[in-house]
Parts: sequence; C-alpha cells; structure tokens
Amino acid sequence: MRRIKLTLSYIGTAYGGWQRQPNRDTVQERIENAIFSLTKKRVSVQGSGRTDAGVHADAQVAHFDDESGLPLKNFVTGINHFLPSDIRIEKAEEVSADFHARFSAVEKTYRYYIYDGAAERAIMLNRATFVKGKLDANKMNEAAKAFIGEHDFKSFMSTGADTTTSVRTVKAISVRKRNGLIVIEVTANGFLYNMVRLISGALVKAGKGEIDRDGIARLIALADKDAVREVMPAQGLYLKSVKYDRK
Amino acid sequence: MRRIKLTLSYIGTAYGGWQRQPNRDTVQERIENAIFSLTKKRVSVQGSGRTDAGVHADAQVAHFDDESGLPLKNFVTGINHFLPSDIRIEKAEEVSADFHARFSAVEKTYRYYIYDGAAERAIMLNRATFVKGKLDANKMNEAAKAFIGEHDFKSFMSTGADTTTSVRTVKAISVRKRNGLIVIEVTANGFLYNMVRLISGALVKAGKGEIDRDGIARLIALADKDAVREVMPAQGLYLKSVKYDRK
Repeated sequence: MRRIKLTLSYIGTAYGGWQRQPNRDTVQERIENAIFSLTKKRVSVQGSGRTDAGVHADAQVAHFDDESGLPLKNFVTGINHFLPSDIRIEKAEEVSADFHARFSAVEKTYRYYIYDGAAERAIMLNRATFVKGKLDANKMNEAAKAFIGEHDFKSFMSTGADTTTSVRTVKAISVRKRNGLIVIEVTANGFLYNMVRLISGALVKAGKGEIDRDGIARLIALADKDAVREVMPAQGLYLKSVKYDRK
Repeated sequence: MRRIKLTLSYIGTAYGGWQRQPNRDTVQERIENAIFSLTKKRVSVQGSGRTDAGVHADAQVAHFDDESGLPLKNFVTGINHFLPSDIRIEKAEEVSADFHARFSAVEKTYRYYIYDGAAERAIMLNRATFVKGKLDANKMNEAAKAFIGEHDFKSFMSTGADTTTSVRTVKAISVRKRNGLIVIEVTANGFLYNMVRLISGALVKAGKGEIDRDGIARLIALADKDAVREVMPAQGLYLKSVKYDRK
C-alpha cells in the first residue's frame, strides 16, 4: 500500500461541487470512478476540502491509498484517460502514509475573478463574474487590508457548514487589475463556508466607494453571521493552491 | 433606415462558426434571430469575416440596417436578452450608410493562446491549446519576424476559401509569455483561410527548436499550399479586434 497525492484542475461549471453526494455529478466521484477504471480497485479519494457547485480549481489536492502497484508515472495519463476533459490530473506523487490532503494542509489560496464594465462578455462566461459599472481596484486593495490577520470571521461565513470555530488567519490578500480583470487573491490557514465569496462581495462594495477599510473592520468586529449577505457567484472562484508542511 | 454597427464577443465552442449555414447552429443566425425577436424585423447581419467552428471572438464586428426606430441604447441589452450567454453584444453604434463590417475593415488582429507543459489542464478547456513539452517563447518571437511585411502567404493558407489573391501584409506579430500562456498576436490587413492557425503551427515548431526565422522565410517563399500542414486547433484562436477607416 502506498499513499498517492494528486494535484488536479477542473472547471466546476458542470459539477455539483467536489464532494460526492447522491444524484449529483461530482468531481470526487468522477475521480474515484476513473481510478477504479484504471486500477480495478475501489478507493476513497480525500480532497483538501470541498469546492461548491460551479467553483473551479487550478490546483486542488487529494490523496488516496493505492494497492494496484501500477508504476507511478502511469497515473496521470491513466486517470486522465477515464476523466472528462474538464477535470485533469496534473501530478501524481507518492507521499508518506501520514500525509492527509485535508488535515496536513497549512494554507490555501483562492482567487476571485471579476470583470466590470457596461455589459457582460461572452468570453468570460463561467470563468469570471460580471459587475456592472466601474470598480476601483486600488480602493478594493486598500479596503482588503482589514481582513489581514487572525479574526473571528463569523460575519463572513454562510451557515450550513459544521465548524467548531470561525476564527481564521488571513495571511495575505490583494486586489489587482490584470488583463482587464480584477483579481482578488486570499491566502489563509483555512476558510469558512462561502468566506471568499462574501469577502469578494464586500470588496466589490469597496470598489464602488460604498465601504472602506474601517467599514469592513467594523463588519468583521460584529462577528455576526447576518452582517454580510452579498455572496458572489461561484463562477468567478478558483481554488488556486494548497500548501502542506510535509510530503 | 439607419446602419448599426455591433461589437460582440463569443465563445465559439458550441457553434458551427460565424456564418449562417443549413443545419448548423451559427453565431450569425443567432444574432439575426435575436434582432428579429427584439425589433420584429428580419435583417441580414454582415460580419467582418467568418470565424470557423470553435473559434472565439473578443470583438467581432458586424452591421445591419435597422428600420425599427428603437432607441439605440436599447439594442445592447435588448439583443442580449434574446441571445444565449455565450454570445454577448458589447456595443451598438449608428454608422454611416457606407460603413461595411467586411469591406471597410482595414486591419484585423487575431490571438492564438497556447499552454505548454507535461499535461493538459481542465482550466484551459476550450480556451487555449495544449502543446506537450516546453516551448521557447523567445525563439518563437524571433522566428515570427519572418512573417512581417507583404508576402504571398499561399504556404500559410488552407484550400477551400475563394480568394483572388493570397498576398497579405502582416503589420505586426509577437509571441509573449503571459500568465503561463504563450500568446501569439498577429495583425494584418487581411487573413487567408486558416492563416493564423498555420502560422501558429509553424511557431510551435520554432518553439521546439525545429525551425527558425530563416526556415519560416523559406516556407513563405515557396508559396506552396502544401508546404505547411500543421493547422492548430480552433479552440485557441480569438478574433481580437477589427479596425476601420471610417465610422
């Protein structure tokens, strides 16, 4: 038996999210089925965390225990052979038996892509979120600083997830304009349910001049799950990377 | 009667190209139908040129003659209302009666997006073309200079299009690495059938060190329609912009 770490990308548009569930086409189930087709062994694939329906991943991480003995180099092309083209395994590595895609993760980075302007653009369909009007990326970047550090992020959490604490540490956050897109990038030791989409909603307001850094700091201080209600759509959200403290 | 110029974007993946044809879902027909739904008038929409099945447009240009008398500002949202979300009208302007989306065009710019590496990435699905291995963007950019200027581009044309001459002027061409993608950008006074996809195929070879600027110059000089056969896939190609000498 050996533990294999997978790094994979997907376009979430067609899926009911990462996590296997009855009557929905999910990324996790697709990968488990593809591994079965390749190795003839049923495995449980554990992801670094769920991504919701419609959310994308540049580099989701998952692990499973393999007993097939197939050469490691065959896993990338082998699994991909049995996957639809909107899910791609990019890397397969052998890791130690105590590596766990979820529990060994020390840091995750998400990106939220927005384009602003007068009208929607087909070219951005299911890849970024449209906001009508003009957003000031500098104001957004300035306001975003309120999120940095350890806070109780209850105001930036949707209910529906089981979690023992809503305290998280945002290690870095930035808002930049790149190639005509506004890119919000957040790195934290962990994320609450809908946290990035709620943060992005607040930053859109900052980009319109409706709230500033102090206003956001006050929303955080409220620690009230009803304080913020603007959940940005899934289609602009990407799990960018997951960092580990071991191999 | 007034002539209206439309600027529009689309993701070509679901369509049999721009041009209306029997038994295929095309961008042109979709727009004509949407205008009919909005204005109750049947119009013929003339594009700046065809794009093939699967090719995208950041800013295709088209015109039609309107007799509805609807306020101009209603056209963008009005037509979009009747279009699928992968086709978006971005601008509607009144132009002079002698403006013609095809014949008044003096310059077009196309982009071809490539990503290289060990494995395909889901995130790039139907938006860029995968090339296995490593491409040298600097070598590609250097080799691309062979295309600049007025040439008979017969070697870089697929048969199947009716054209009186295969002489075109490439005004600018560049190859850059941007956000992990290789972006080939070509501006010319006009393009032959599959010209950008054939140019991009030759530049991929340059990126692998299989051909250089002199080698490409020799292929051009051959002016032989069988000299180059590597047509790159449609999914990486974008009509970026069309330039006009009048309004």
